[in-house]
Amino acid sequence: LGADIELCLANPGTTEMPIVLALDTVPGIRPVLGLHETICTGAADGYGRIAGKPALVLLHLGPGLANGLANLHNARRARSPVVVLVGEHASWHMAADAPLAMEIEKLAETFSAAVERVASPEGIGPALRRAIASALARNGGVATLVVPHDHQIAVAGPGSPVPDAVPATPTAEERTVRDAAALLRSGQSGALILGGRALHGTGLELAGRIARRTGCALLGEVGFARLETGWGLPSVRRLPYFANEAQEALRRLRGVIGVGAKKPVSFFGWPGQPNRYLDGRDDVVWLAGPDEDAVDALERLADRLGAFEPWRPEPPDPLDLPTGALDAAKIAGVLAALQPEGAIIVPTAVTSAYPYSTIATRARPHTQLALTGGAIGEGPALAIGAALADPGRKVVNLEADGSCAYAMQAFWTQARERLDIVTIVCANQAYRILQLEMERAGMPWQGPAASGLTSLSRPPIGWARIAEAQGVPARRVETAEDLADGLRAALATRGPLLLEAVF
Amino acid sequence: LGADIELCLANPGTTEMPIVLALDTVPGIRPVLGLHETICTGAADGYGRIAGKPALVLLHLGPGLANGLANLHNARRARSPVVVLVGEHASWHMAADAPLAMEIEKLAETFSAAVERVASPEGIGPALRRAIASALARNGGVATLVVPHDHQIAVAGPGSPVPDAVPATPTAEERTVRDAAALLRSGQSGALILGGRALHGTGLELAGRIARRTGCALLGEVGFARLETGWGLPSVRRLPYFANEAQEALRRLRGVIGVGAKKPVSFFGWPGQPNRYLDGRDDVVWLAGPDEDAVDALERLADRLGAFEPWRPEPPDPLDLPTGALDAAKIAGVLAALQPEGAIIVPTAVTSAYPYSTIATRARPHTQLALTGGAIGEGPALAIGAALADPGRKVVNLEADGSCAYAMQAFWTQARERLDIVTIVCANQAYRILQLEMERAGMPWQGPAASGLTSLSRPPIGWARIAEAQGVPARRVETAEDLADGLRAALATRGPLLLEAVF
Repeated sequence: LGADIELCLANPGTTEMPIVLALDTVPGIRPVLGLHETICTGAADGYGRIAGKPALVLLHLGPGLANGLANLHNARRARSPVVVLVGEHASWHMAADAPLAMEIEKLAETFSAAVERVASPEGIGPALRRAIASALARNGGVATLVVPHDHQIAVAGPGSPVPDAVPATPTAEERTVRDAAALLRSGQSGALILGGRALHGTGLELAGRIARRTGCALLGEVGFARLETGWGLPSVRRLPYFANEAQEALRRLRGVIGVGAKKPVSFFGWPGQPNRYLDGRDDVVWLAGPDEDAVDALERLADRLGAFEPWRPEPPDPLDLPTGALDAAKIAGVLAALQPEGAIIVPTAVTSAYPYSTIATRARPHTQLALTGGAIGEGPALAIGAALADPGRKVVNLEADGSCAYAMQAFWTQARERLDIVTIVCANQAYRILQLEMERAGMPWQGPAASGLTSLSRPPIGWARIAEAQGVPARRVETAEDLADGLRAALATRGPLLLEAVF
Repeated sequence: LGADIELCLANPGTTEMPIVLALDTVPGIRPVLGLHETICTGAADGYGRIAGKPALVLLHLGPGLANGLANLHNARRARSPVVVLVGEHASWHMAADAPLAMEIEKLAETFSAAVERVASPEGIGPALRRAIASALARNGGVATLVVPHDHQIAVAGPGSPVPDAVPATPTAEERTVRDAAALLRSGQSGALILGGRALHGTGLELAGRIARRTGCALLGEVGFARLETGWGLPSVRRLPYFANEAQEALRRLRGVIGVGAKKPVSFFGWPGQPNRYLDGRDDVVWLAGPDEDAVDALERLADRLGAFEPWRPEPPDPLDLPTGALDAAKIAGVLAALQPEGAIIVPTAVTSAYPYSTIATRARPHTQLALTGGAIGEGPALAIGAALADPGRKVVNLEADGSCAYAMQAFWTQARERLDIVTIVCANQAYRILQLEMERAGMPWQGPAASGLTSLSRPPIGWARIAEAQGVPARRVETAEDLADGLRAALATRGPLLLEAVF
């Protein structure tokens, strides 16, 4: 195993036992069990986003892979480096079509940058090194290795170190950089649309310099993998989720430069509404897509514009603590006001995290991990991965009840590994986004089927009890004051805690 | 929608809203929400096994399908009739590669007997009728329909009735029937290996006649879809799960006839152990595989043998109630002694349900649904489907804690729909099957990784609280006496209840 791999998120079965046993002979790889594969794969996504290198995910045959697949789709969209090891029946047992046999490669191809089946015991070492390289190539991706049971013997043993760098190719042509610079210079109200590595670290710093120099706005993709934000950092506004609002925000701009993001499209296609927001415009230049080197592109653009002065923040605009009965805006206000510097925030609630997006730029500097691929329910697992990647930082998962019901099992792993995660469940007792989408489309959703299938109130879910049943202390709150109390207490200690915010 | 479709198990999203709204205009289709797609698909499997006709499963795009995929694999192995409707982006939105976009067909091909993408609004009616026909063909299977958002308008409206019969072709040749009869006549210790429709109803009755006439044993496949058993019914012994035990059981037989089952293979391939148990034998005749008509084959075999007398049960052998601290055998004993006639038992615990298999033939007559495809965690959802298919029968899910952790969300649907389901969680706080498999393979599993990844004791999971948090009353029991008390109380009322059996 590669010397720099330090984490194996696993829900193994019989066919993976040789690999499990090998973990007891390889020092330095921490095995972490998830009670459902979706917890393992979501955690690997979160770990990859924060650590910048892959964890191993160990899954049991096709069904195990299927269970973890939705979050691997999210990881693919996040460009997270992840190496998936899927156990497979012994090679000589394949033709028996045993009960658990499935077409594993077909499943893996839907999310993987690379898929390989190990063909011999000797083959596993080199295949693993290739998988690690694939996971780190082109800004990151998921590499899947199918390992038959009879070829797992040679897993243990020294490996080559994982390369540090994440090579990204190709890079923007000089002419494109020149066009982008010209657009920003001439524009009264241009903008950079940022994604991938343009949203944190050096990339973000460069974008801030360009914004200072040209006065352009900084926009972030809706489903970003990792954003650094908060007071003092370049202020990135997230593109609106709803198609008409996004289109409206973009229409007002003159000169749009894309760096590290895809050209923005709507989540869904609605009749009569735009889905490719920038089609047909001649003031759009795409410097770097998700596969390309966003940092290099920003560096060259900054050089050409003479943008050498760092971002200058607005005067601080302190956040007041809200009071009274909770709603999504007040939950956001409490969190933004109290969160410590350097926290990792996972705002994966769909409607309830939206207000948080808009005020988080005024909170203390922090990292955010969003839902990239739209596959619901990743928050608690992303938080696990982030906490494993950087145990020194407080992780706060701002999660919805509908999403959280996809990952109820996550709290057990949070308790078992004593992870420093606060979960705020925004319990509005509905798939509110669906009701909103129907309202916006003029659909009546009050009929028994439509309201029944979008409501979670009958019966209400007792989130505090669900957490406590798995070893995570919890508290139910109904006012902003109580939420603030609970959050302060949680921030003053280490370890997992859940706050059930009912509204 | 087909007039005989009466159930839609759903976790819809934005792209499925036109279908959801259509459910409000089509009388007679009951919408049931699951908090995770795995609940919906497992319930559809259970419903199909009991009702013999398909429910609809409504899933949200590729990620929704991915989440429900493992139980669709189980349904495929069970030959359950299921029709899956997967919403898809509007056809004109496909090229945008929006965040949730995935290769849906590729996923669906891994478990579907038929996959079709609806190409126009007018196309959905005929496509749905084809899907229903596919789901009922060849003893049953999963048919998947991918329905783009802009083609969902025409869903509502009258449909053709679902055909009653389940056509199965081809059927055994006359020569094969003759060979089978000759083997059984000559054999001192022959056996029928039964699967599919040979394990209940007419098929089982015919097998019982043949057993009476020839003295042959009746063996059931390990992962049967539906078995009717109990005192008075032909006594079917389930093939052992472990390869060497199964091989040993089969070695003692002279003359093996297969009807409705696959030739038995081991779950996993272990070095030096047989995986295709019957290879190389000349006293084996396969009358009907899973695609073929098992009932017809049994009828012709019975005719040729002159097996007209019904099965004659042994004298009843009453079951005593066990006492004292619980273990798997005592849980089995309590359940078998108390279960009412006509119950549907879902014994999906892996190690903990094994003792139950061996004594259930002495319980009152009942139906059992087992795990067919090995994809763990289906029990609570299978129970939902069975309870929806036949509300008049008590359903008891004998589930393991490891499996149950895959489907924690199921209790919410059980509570919401007031389903008559008792869940007994066998809380041995381990993936015991993995520890057993390692012991049997001579692997040391006491190292920190191997024991950590197979143990569920740190922290213990509070099953009673998890159920209560979702509206299902629950009770924690540690002795056989308390379990019997709890079970008696549960059987005396209707509605869901959970018994956490700790040992």
